[in-house]
Amino acid sequence: MQITFLGTSSGVPTRKRNVSSIALRLPQRAEVWLMDCGEGTQQQILRSDVKISQITKIFITHMHGDHIFGLPGLLASCGMAGNVEHIDLYGPTDLADYLNSCLRYSETRLSYPIKIHKVAPGFVCEDEEFIVTCAPLKHRVTAHGYRIEQKDRLGRFNVEKAIAQKIPSGPLYGQLKRGQSVTLPDGRFIDASNFQSPPQIGHKVVYCTDTIYCESAVELAKNADVLIHEATFAHQDADLAYQRMHSTTTMAAQVALAAGVKALIMTHFSPRYAPGNSLQLEDLLQEARMIFPNTFISQDFMTFDVEAIARPEILQHQALA
Amino acid sequence: MQITFLGTSSGVPTRKRNVSSIALRLPQRAEVWLMDCGEGTQQQILRSDVKISQITKIFITHMHGDHIFGLPGLLASCGMAGNVEHIDLYGPTDLADYLNSCLRYSETRLSYPIKIHKVAPGFVCEDEEFIVTCAPLKHRVTAHGYRIEQKDRLGRFNVEKAIAQKIPSGPLYGQLKRGQSVTLPDGRFIDASNFQSPPQIGHKVVYCTDTIYCESAVELAKNADVLIHEATFAHQDADLAYQRMHSTTTMAAQVALAAGVKALIMTHFSPRYAPGNSLQLEDLLQEARMIFPNTFISQDFMTFDVEAIARPEILQHQALA
Repeated sequence: MQITFLGTSSGVPTRKRNVSSIALRLPQRAEVWLMDCGEGTQQQILRSDVKISQITKIFITHMHGDHIFGLPGLLASCGMAGNVEHIDLYGPTDLADYLNSCLRYSETRLSYPIKIHKVAPGFVCEDEEFIVTCAPLKHRVTAHGYRIEQKDRLGRFNVEKAIAQKIPSGPLYGQLKRGQSVTLPDGRFIDASNFQSPPQIGHKVVYCTDTIYCESAVELAKNADVLIHEATFAHQDADLAYQRMHSTTTMAAQVALAAGVKALIMTHFSPRYAPGNSLQLEDLLQEARMIFPNTFISQDFMTFDVEAIARPEILQHQALA
Repeated sequence: MQITFLGTSSGVPTRKRNVSSIALRLPQRAEVWLMDCGEGTQQQILRSDVKISQITKIFITHMHGDHIFGLPGLLASCGMAGNVEHIDLYGPTDLADYLNSCLRYSETRLSYPIKIHKVAPGFVCEDEEFIVTCAPLKHRVTAHGYRIEQKDRLGRFNVEKAIAQKIPSGPLYGQLKRGQSVTLPDGRFIDASNFQSPPQIGHKVVYCTDTIYCESAVELAKNADVLIHEATFAHQDADLAYQRMHSTTTMAAQVALAAGVKALIMTHFSPRYAPGNSLQLEDLLQEARMIFPNTFISQDFMTFDVEAIARPEILQHQALA
C-alpha cells in the first residue's frame, strides 16, 4: 500500500505543484484509488508511474474546483486507455450533476460504466479487504475526510506443525485456519492460536482536506498509520486560515497528536510559501514537528510506503530521497 | 503578433503534448487571445512565457472535452492572478451553459466579469485593430474555424517632408495623415500619398479544428498569412479520418494550397505517431510538404512570429530552434 502525491498545491497550480490529487496504490490487487482530482491530474499520472488503467475508485472530498476540475478529462481518458472495466466515484451530493453535465455538454460517451455514490458521514464502501468510512470536515462548503482501513487478517495456518502433531487433515484444518480451537476424536484439545502466526493488523490511511481544525477529523484519524492532512497556512497566518476555513501546520499537527496516528503527511500548501519567499515549506515542517515529530511534507510525485510508516527511519529516508 | 502552441495532441494528452490550446500574442496591446482551452492549459501557461493575466479573449471551436475542459480552472486562476479586468469568450451555443454549471457546482465566484458570446458563421467581433470572423467546419459536432484579421494600417505621415515643403501645420496635417489630398491656400495641390510610407497590410491568422477537409475552411483561410489546421492523421490513415471526421496531413495541405496561404502549421496530432512508432511526425510533415512546401509541425511551447511568415527562411529557423 503506497501513497503517491499527484498534486500538493492549494487553489491554483504552481510550476512545481499541481492542484489536489492523491493516488492510493494497492499493488497486490493491481488497483489505484484516487482521492480528489484537480485539473491536470491525468497529466500528472502520465508523468508518474501510476497506471491510469488501474483506477477503480475515486473519492472526492468536496466540490471546489481545485479538487474536481480534472474529473471529466480523466474519465474520458480512462475510456481511451482501453482496459478500464468500471469506476466507482464517491463524493458530495452535487458530484453526479456536475459530472453528468460536463459529459453531456462535451458529448463524451464513456466506454465503461461509472457509478456515482453520494456519501454521508459514516460507512462509504466495503469489500473483503477494505472498509472505507468518512466524516464531516469544517470548510466553506460541505467536505468529508476519508478513512481507508485495511481489515485485520488472520495469521497464516502452520500446516507443517499440524501434520507433525498428527492432526487429521480435512475439515479440522479449516476450523483451525479460521482460528477455532477443536477437540480431536482422540480427546486432545488443540488450541488454534498455537498453529497460526500472529494476525496481520491492517493499515489505516486517513485523508482530511479542506478543513480547519475539527474534532471529527481527530475522531476519523484515531490510531491511523498515516494521516494526510491539509496545511494550507503557516502558524503565523492563522488569521487567513480562520477566514478561509483552512488549516495551519499546527492545526494539522494537533489533529495527528490527538488522534495518536503514526505519521502525518502535510499537503495542500498555499503558493505563498514557494521557494524565494520569507517563509518556506521547510519552516512549515519545523512548526508541525514541534508538536508532532513524525511529520512529513509532500511534494508532487513523492511516494510513501505505508508498510514503512511503523519504521519512521525508513520513511524518512524515502521521503528525502 | 506571435502564436504559441500550448497543446498539440488530439483527444488525450501525452507526456510531450497536451490537449488543444493556442495563445495568439499581441505584444503591442499586452494582450493574449486564447484559441481552445483543453484540460491543463493553465499549467502549460505556467511553463511558458505567456502571461495568464493578459488573456482578454478566448475563442472555442467546439465542445469536445479536449478543447474545453481547461476553461473552468483557467478562469478561476485568472481571478486569483488578480489583475484580469474582463474576459470575452466566444463559442458554440452550449458554451455558456457548460461554463455556468461548472462554476455553479464548484461554487467558483470569479472576481472579474466574463461575457460569453454565442458565435454563428460570419462576424464574431471587432475593434480598431482587429476583425474576427468564423466559418462552419465539418466535424461530428458543430465546430467553427476562426479568422483573426489585423486591419490594414495607413502608412506613417512624413512630418519632416511636410515642414520642408512649407505646408502650414494644423488641420491640413490631419487631412494628409488620413490620406486625403489637399489644395493649399497658395494654390498648390498636395498629393497625400507623397507624404506617407506605404500602408501596412494587416496579418491574418486562421485556425481550423476539428474538421475533415471542407470548402468553408478554404474560404475562411483565403490569403491568410498563417493557417493553423488540424492534421490528426497521416495520409495512409485516411479511413480513420473519414470515420472520425478529422483531417489527414494531405487534407490540411490541400486547404492551405487552395486558400493560397503563406504558411501552414499543422497541429492536433494523434498520439499514434509519437516517437517509437512506425509512422512519426517527421513523416507527416513530409506528406504535407509534397503538396504545400511551406508547412510546419507544431510542438507544445513552440512560438511562431507571424511577421516572419512572409520570410519563410526566418520562420524555418525559428521553428527548428
